[in-house]
Amino acid sequence: MVYLTRSEHFNAAHKLFNPNWTYEKNEEVFGKCANENWHGHNYELLVTVKGQPSPDTGFVFDVKKLSTIIKEHVIEKIDHRNLNLDVDFMKDKMCSTENLAIGIWQQLTPHLPEGVQLHCIKLYETPRIYVEYFGE
Amino acid sequence: MVYLTRSEHFNAAHKLFNPNWTYEKNEEVFGKCANENWHGHNYELLVTVKGQPSPDTGFVFDVKKLSTIIKEHVIEKIDHRNLNLDVDFMKDKMCSTENLAIGIWQQLTPHLPEGVQLHCIKLYETPRIYVEYFGE
Amino acid sequence: MVYLTRSEHFNAAHKLFNPNWTYEKNEEVFGKCANENWHGHNYELLVTVKGQPSPDTGFVFDVKKLSTIIKEHVIEKIDHRNLNLDVDFMKDKMCSTENLAIGIWQQLTPHLPEGVQLHCIKLYETPRIYVEYFGE
Amino acid sequence: MVYLTRSEHFNAAHKLFNPNWTYEKNEEVFGKCANENWHGHNYELLVTVKGQPSPDTGFVFDVKKLSTIIKEHVIEKIDHRNLNLDVDFMKDKMCSTENLAIGIWQQLTPHLPEGVQLHCIKLYETPRIYVEYFGE
Amino acid sequence: MVYLTRSEHFNAAHKLFNPNWTYEKNEEVFGKCANENWHGHNYELLVTVKGQPSPDTGFVFDVKKLSTIIKEHVIEKIDHRNLNLDVDFMKDKMCSTENLAIGIWQQLTPHLPEGVQLHCIKLYETPRIYVEYFGE
Amino acid sequence: MVYLTRSEHFNAAHKLFNPNWTYEKNEEVFGKCANENWHGHNYELLVTVKGQPSPDTGFVFDVKKLSTIIKEHVIEKIDHRNLNLDVDFMKDKMCSTENLAIGIWQQLTPHLPEGVQLHCIKLYETPRIYVEYFGE
Repeated sequence: MVYLTRSEHFNAAHKLFNPNWTYEKNEEVFGKCANENWHGHNYELLVTVKGQPSPDTGFVFDVKKLSTIIKEHVIEKIDHRNLNLDVDFMKDKMCSTENLAIGIWQQLTPHLPEGVQLHCIKLYETPRIYVEYFGE
Repeated sequence: MVYLTRSEHFNAAHKLFNPNWTYEKNEEVFGKCANENWHGHNYELLVTVKGQPSPDTGFVFDVKKLSTIIKEHVIEKIDHRNLNLDVDFMKDKMCSTENLAIGIWQQLTPHLPEGVQLHCIKLYETPRIYVEYFGE
Repeated sequence: MVYLTRSEHFNAAHKLFNPNWTYEKNEEVFGKCANENWHGHNYELLVTVKGQPSPDTGFVFDVKKLSTIIKEHVIEKIDHRNLNLDVDFMKDKMCSTENLAIGIWQQLTPHLPEGVQLHCIKLYETPRIYVEYFGE
Repeated sequence: MVYLTRSEHFNAAHKLFNPNWTYEKNEEVFGKCANENWHGHNYELLVTVKGQPSPDTGFVFDVKKLSTIIKEHVIEKIDHRNLNLDVDFMKDKMCSTENLAIGIWQQLTPHLPEGVQLHCIKLYETPRIYVEYFGE
Repeated sequence: MVYLTRSEHFNAAHKLFNPNWTYEKNEEVFGKCANENWHGHNYELLVTVKGQPSPDTGFVFDVKKLSTIIKEHVIEKIDHRNLNLDVDFMKDKMCSTENLAIGIWQQLTPHLPEGVQLHCIKLYETPRIYVEYFGE
Repeated sequence: MVYLTRSEHFNAAHKLFNPNWTYEKNEEVFGKCANENWHGHNYELLVTVKGQPSPDTGFVFDVKKLSTIIKEHVIEKIDHRNLNLDVDFMKDKMCSTENLAIGIWQQLTPHLPEGVQLHCIKLYETPRIYVEYFGE
């Protein structure tokens, strides 16, 4: 079993705001991240798949195809977007990095071919903060 | 003469949109950057000052004081903000990285002590795009 | 289960020196790291916790609180210090990166709230050397 | 149990080419990577070992010895080489990053002392593509 | 005057070999870089242009257009290629990073629009070696 | 004229302490950096030379020779050392990064061959603080 990782970049606006709470409670819990006028990030996304290298190619999976799948099913939907307003798979969810990673997992997992399993979504919100999700 | 650089980080939402143009013209020129719902970035800001090292301290300038000046006069005003809506010194300007770097220069230069000159504002919009401004 | 990582920086002096050994034996085993006048490093510390994202916030744990806990219980004690002389939790231990990572784990684990588990301490001594400790 | 990682660099030429296929099929599957005149990379290799820190040294393993073993048994054989033509342990294999990582594992594992286990070979082909192999 | 930099990546095979010298002399001067079977690198290319920000866009130059020009006139010709064999503008030149940077300058400078000047080609051969060329 | 840069790493202990001042004044000015038990850093040193590429080699200067000169005249003297106690060329100077960069310039400049000029010493004390010295 070999693990193959491809990283992709996107940037987006978002805010952290719980609509069931008052504005004051949101400010207290989320601080500057609750700014009603939004803020944003350069996200770095690392997608790891695992499988057996093919005897014909030496590949677990063609990394160019992996990149195409990530771009088509994730980057196209979230790059240069507002995560709270523009992204169907984040609708009615808190726009935390944790939930975004889970959402990205759910976007990608149906599109991988047989023999290739999604192993990890690692998502940097800033160079010093990241989350990882392994599908369970 | 020695040059001293301190880097600081902030993140913000913005869009590129010229109000004198139609929506279509903005889309044509700025593409995804014109998204009316905003997008955002983790900016990395490098501020370079120059001067003679002091015989008493060996410092061109105390880097902690430099950091404090940058935080007080720049980071406080733009971190976790919307550059188009929330930042006084970007009002009525196109929110390009170029103009943001010039604006940051103008914010900082009055607050440096005698004997220390601002040399360069270097501003990364993404890890692969940056601008530099030397005050002229 | 989602894993959340926050990185923090500190710098410190140390030496590698076993007091049960002769000076020559220390030099032979530790080389330049045994320099009796000390040397030092910029350490990069990555703290990973795991848990279920809260439905109210989308957070496994508020990353600002995580940062505060790391600063209060670790960074305050070791930043700009001599690891052999100034740090209570390294007393009478060899000051290797391995032992420092274990010591940091022990400092942090009592201060995490219920529902949030410490998963990993990853500690870079240089950009090309790091250790990881998972608590067992 | 503590995990210790050392990173080393090398650069090499290679091509992806399956000799059982026509030139056209190779081009179709591997694209520019099949260029018969070769291309190349700066590879970054991270070798992780695990073990108990020694009470005498605080080390899982002396990282200088680990570096020496990696240089002697891997870097010497592949740095500034053509992976397809010059490297004995890649003979008759597809020169993918996956197979190179497996080959490096097999080179290193016999040379580690008792009490120190090889845990992971992580190999970057480019800053945005890497593979990991855990020996099984 | 503002300076705008865009970075692009490519990888290539090459060797350092002076055809006027014996094989032995080449080995003596270039060491492992003279390997007749080639070696290779991931190159990182930073292209800096300078100009006045446009009042309409805030841009010195549209960074997407800059990227397109770099890709069309440089990356297409050298990515996944053999610099000695496949690249017209390196024909009959020593394939050093210095000469490659000068060659890239000459490729790009005719394609920039009026009001935008090429300022610097910065080219990393490895993360620890780079050259800069300013056109004179 | 082409500029060639080589980066090298070292780590060292130091403190900032002016012997003409009281302990209290040192603490007030230098804060944690005045800790009498020392602290330390991983320094990253970038040495830039300039010259004309040789028609025979394509090199401004053989980067391996540049590395050897830096190691022999700088790294050997300061790596794994105490900058205040162990380094002859820092004797009786404040151990600031500014003064260390000037000292390194003075160490290197006599050892470069004709036709190759030292252009810049760039020295990172931490990933977010660096100084540059151009010899004047």
